[in-house]
Amino acid sequence: MNMFIMCSVKLGLCTCILNNLLLCIILQSSHTSEGVWPLPQTFSTSMVRYELKPQSFHFGYRGQSAAQRDCSVLDAAFERYFALIFSNNTAGNDKFSVDEPFTLEINVDHHDCESYPKEDSSERYNLSVSTGRAFLNAETVWGALRGLETFSQLVYQDNVGSYFVNKTDIEDFPQFRHRGILLDTSRHYLPVQAILKTLDAMAYSKFNVFHWHIVDDPSFPYQSQTFPDLSGKGAFHPVTHIYRQSDVRRVISYARMRGVRVLPEFDSPGHTQSWGKGQPGLLTPCYRRGVPSGTFGPVNPALPSTYQFMASLFKEVASVFPDSYVHLGGDEVDLSCWKSNPSILTFMKKMGFGVDFPKLETFYMEKIVNITSALNKTSVVWQEVFDNNERHTSQSVVEVWKQGCYLCEVRRVTKAGLRVILASPWYLDLPGPTHNWARYYTVWPLAFKGTEEQKKLVIGGEVCLWGEFVDATNLAPRLWPRASAAAERLWSDEKQTSSVKQAFPRLQDFRCRLLRRGIQAEPLDVGHCRHEYQGV
Amino acid sequence: MNMFIMCSVKLGLCTCILNNLLLCIILQSSHTSEGVWPLPQTFSTSMVRYELKPQSFHFGYRGQSAAQRDCSVLDAAFERYFALIFSNNTAGNDKFSVDEPFTLEINVDHHDCESYPKEDSSERYNLSVSTGRAFLNAETVWGALRGLETFSQLVYQDNVGSYFVNKTDIEDFPQFRHRGILLDTSRHYLPVQAILKTLDAMAYSKFNVFHWHIVDDPSFPYQSQTFPDLSGKGAFHPVTHIYRQSDVRRVISYARMRGVRVLPEFDSPGHTQSWGKGQPGLLTPCYRRGVPSGTFGPVNPALPSTYQFMASLFKEVASVFPDSYVHLGGDEVDLSCWKSNPSILTFMKKMGFGVDFPKLETFYMEKIVNITSALNKTSVVWQEVFDNNERHTSQSVVEVWKQGCYLCEVRRVTKAGLRVILASPWYLDLPGPTHNWARYYTVWPLAFKGTEEQKKLVIGGEVCLWGEFVDATNLAPRLWPRASAAAERLWSDEKQTSSVKQAFPRLQDFRCRLLRRGIQAEPLDVGHCRHEYQGV
Repeated sequence: MNMFIMCSVKLGLCTCILNNLLLCIILQSSHTSEGVWPLPQTFSTSMVRYELKPQSFHFGYRGQSAAQRDCSVLDAAFERYFALIFSNNTAGNDKFSVDEPFTLEINVDHHDCESYPKEDSSERYNLSVSTGRAFLNAETVWGALRGLETFSQLVYQDNVGSYFVNKTDIEDFPQFRHRGILLDTSRHYLPVQAILKTLDAMAYSKFNVFHWHIVDDPSFPYQSQTFPDLSGKGAFHPVTHIYRQSDVRRVISYARMRGVRVLPEFDSPGHTQSWGKGQPGLLTPCYRRGVPSGTFGPVNPALPSTYQFMASLFKEVASVFPDSYVHLGGDEVDLSCWKSNPSILTFMKKMGFGVDFPKLETFYMEKIVNITSALNKTSVVWQEVFDNNERHTSQSVVEVWKQGCYLCEVRRVTKAGLRVILASPWYLDLPGPTHNWARYYTVWPLAFKGTEEQKKLVIGGEVCLWGEFVDATNLAPRLWPRASAAAERLWSDEKQTSSVKQAFPRLQDFRCRLLRRGIQAEPLDVGHCRHEYQGV
Repeated sequence: MNMFIMCSVKLGLCTCILNNLLLCIILQSSHTSEGVWPLPQTFSTSMVRYELKPQSFHFGYRGQSAAQRDCSVLDAAFERYFALIFSNNTAGNDKFSVDEPFTLEINVDHHDCESYPKEDSSERYNLSVSTGRAFLNAETVWGALRGLETFSQLVYQDNVGSYFVNKTDIEDFPQFRHRGILLDTSRHYLPVQAILKTLDAMAYSKFNVFHWHIVDDPSFPYQSQTFPDLSGKGAFHPVTHIYRQSDVRRVISYARMRGVRVLPEFDSPGHTQSWGKGQPGLLTPCYRRGVPSGTFGPVNPALPSTYQFMASLFKEVASVFPDSYVHLGGDEVDLSCWKSNPSILTFMKKMGFGVDFPKLETFYMEKIVNITSALNKTSVVWQEVFDNNERHTSQSVVEVWKQGCYLCEVRRVTKAGLRVILASPWYLDLPGPTHNWARYYTVWPLAFKGTEEQKKLVIGGEVCLWGEFVDATNLAPRLWPRASAAAERLWSDEKQTSSVKQAFPRLQDFRCRLLRRGIQAEPLDVGHCRHEYQGV
């Protein structure tokens, strides 16, 4: 009766009140050490545990909930999480025992079952587990999804295979609302299955944005309805190495079901070599000693046809991708080709740019930003677009990616009143163990001098997995569990998660959980998981 | 008729004789660029091609062959290679056409079908592909396996899915007879399936030794018949994380079928923490300020019981593992614990070793070498065992693993008349792309000053994949295709394979072939394969 122990997780210690006695125990019992990753904001647990049996466990909607049966997002989530919770069911059903039922009842305030997660969607939830039932309250179905993930991580098996969950109370919400993973499907083609599997794993770590760097110099796998030649001539292969409209819809739908937004990037004016194959006249012809060299540079910003093409393309993109954000790129523009081209030089003169080529870059990006603004999209751009434009007139979100003092850049961008997504510290290109998880965990996105208003403009961060040396063969072990370290940084309270040492055993347990769920997450160090990946 | 073009691959160029005209073409046609990896010693090919159809393709034994039907190794190989050659069969059978049959006929000199590959087994083969048939001649079935692998790599598909093989003549043999891969199943447990899959991939690159570093400090997964407590108490888990006798037999049998020897390593006296759990009294108790500290050091070399135990253990190992080599380890012995222990110091005094602890190490290793010699096994030891012993009385094979001037060590060991296995330049622990394939390709094991006799003592090399950060989740992409770079160095003629630039497209093609065969080999650089790994 009086065994309920209130604990508030703080720096790995647990202040415990038991019958008015103040006790301190360390959260290292067999189940709680597995815990929840990323760590919830407030977390009260108890030694009282309840057995869960697959045959008497149910998900349900509370009477007052805005979402009820046939809520597509939650109905599907119930099925997924039932399978995840009761995976490795070795105990077998005891058909003759009368089991106490256990129900997880959901209440959500808004009926957003058929919509898409948005940049300002609440992901807050409360979860209360007690005798025979658990209550999960959330403002939105997206918050309910986060709570279901948490609940699934609270369930553990004892040595004979029975399932248990402890008495628990959780209030939880994300520290940052934009928690993304960038995949690059241009340098290597990623089969749709590999993307879907990544979306599964993202949901396990509570990521909520899939930044799809879908095209770049090496290949153009997006099959455009308006410009089919872009993939027809610009993909690695026009049939096997493309994303059809149906593939894109499948990815968006799969992501939606997991509360993940799909943020497409069509990077220009640089990084567009593959575009040129299917869209002659789009790229700038480079010159050598006064004659065309046969090579091409960035998109040609001097031609009206460029903007007509971009308007058509982004009109399609805006309709295919439901998210209100679209990423316009704008990084690493090589100016040498523009400088070599006589008609570009003429255009510069006419526009009064002198020899200030970054002005030309800004001119181009502003046109593209305006195109997407007219389509009611918020544009996201890489940091150069901000750096080049002193006026900062556009209301783009700026993604900070360069190495070095990235917080200096965050400070500058937020000082200009613009929103920031931080990527610099989370480039996962170089593999572990030289670049291990702790490197990605000990990142403090708000550790710059700035006002409260400035801090609020840091809307989140993204883990970037560029594709030079990554395809479906090594994607999963390169991402996981290192990306999960970033996930905790972006979701959890910084003060409660500042210690690498305390995070380590929790992340090891979480990594084993990923394995059990079929995610090929690589090991952090010497050791083992109860269920090893079979490698087949 | 006169279209037969003789080409001899040399430095990537092909000298071609056509109707008495000398032509030079670069081997970059659609099929030959895929070529054979590792590169055969002599390779004549032609533009004349023959279509192969699954329904009319057969393997057969020539009349004079010592091996005939029911040769277990070759019968099984025929099945495997038929499936590999005609994988991705999309063309469908044309049941109404009468196909010209094509037969690959094998002749081997020795009936070694039921034996194990040995350290001096010939792997030489000749392969001649002409109208309607191919002849494969080898001294042993192991050579025939290498020839079958080569033949399978000669077959290619055109754009409509038909299979072809070109007129070809190959004489081939390995540069080094010991071409190994070390897997570490102590730092992480590798499920048997992951080992078998690695053996498959090893055969594709013509590796012939699986160095099984089966036990070490973190865990003792080998289930000994004589000492079941070693795994019972020393494995990560006594049931799920062990290799049963049946598992070991399965690995050895699977390896044999692919011409791969299994070289077991039971490393001592260091690297034995896990042994101590199931064999009390085996390890040296460490002392601090004159009293036992509760921790243990290397195997206790002062006790007769140690050698009784080792004699029993190695007697079992010698009977379980058929190979004539056994690896005894002997690396990285931490002397501090021995130095702290009073009875060790007494023993040192009694033996007249003074304070020369490496002498104690040598004393121990000589005892173990003698135990295995009495069991008719050739011992392999890590280089410290050689370094510590000035007399070099034992006839062990020395494995050179330390970084730095490893060829200096190779020179010293061969000067002492001992055989060398080179591992130093092929440590694959650190992942690519910082440690990329070219690093492992540009290794010249014989580039030291020494006599012809000394060079002959370099019997080969081993790729080492230590397990600190590797388990079944990332084993395959970390090994392949980087290990294949070492495989070519160990098999092929150094002069013909000295150029990274020329090897690159061939290795890219080979990597795509590995993918097609289900090996999760990671990409070398930006690009694509016709058949991508699906990532599921």
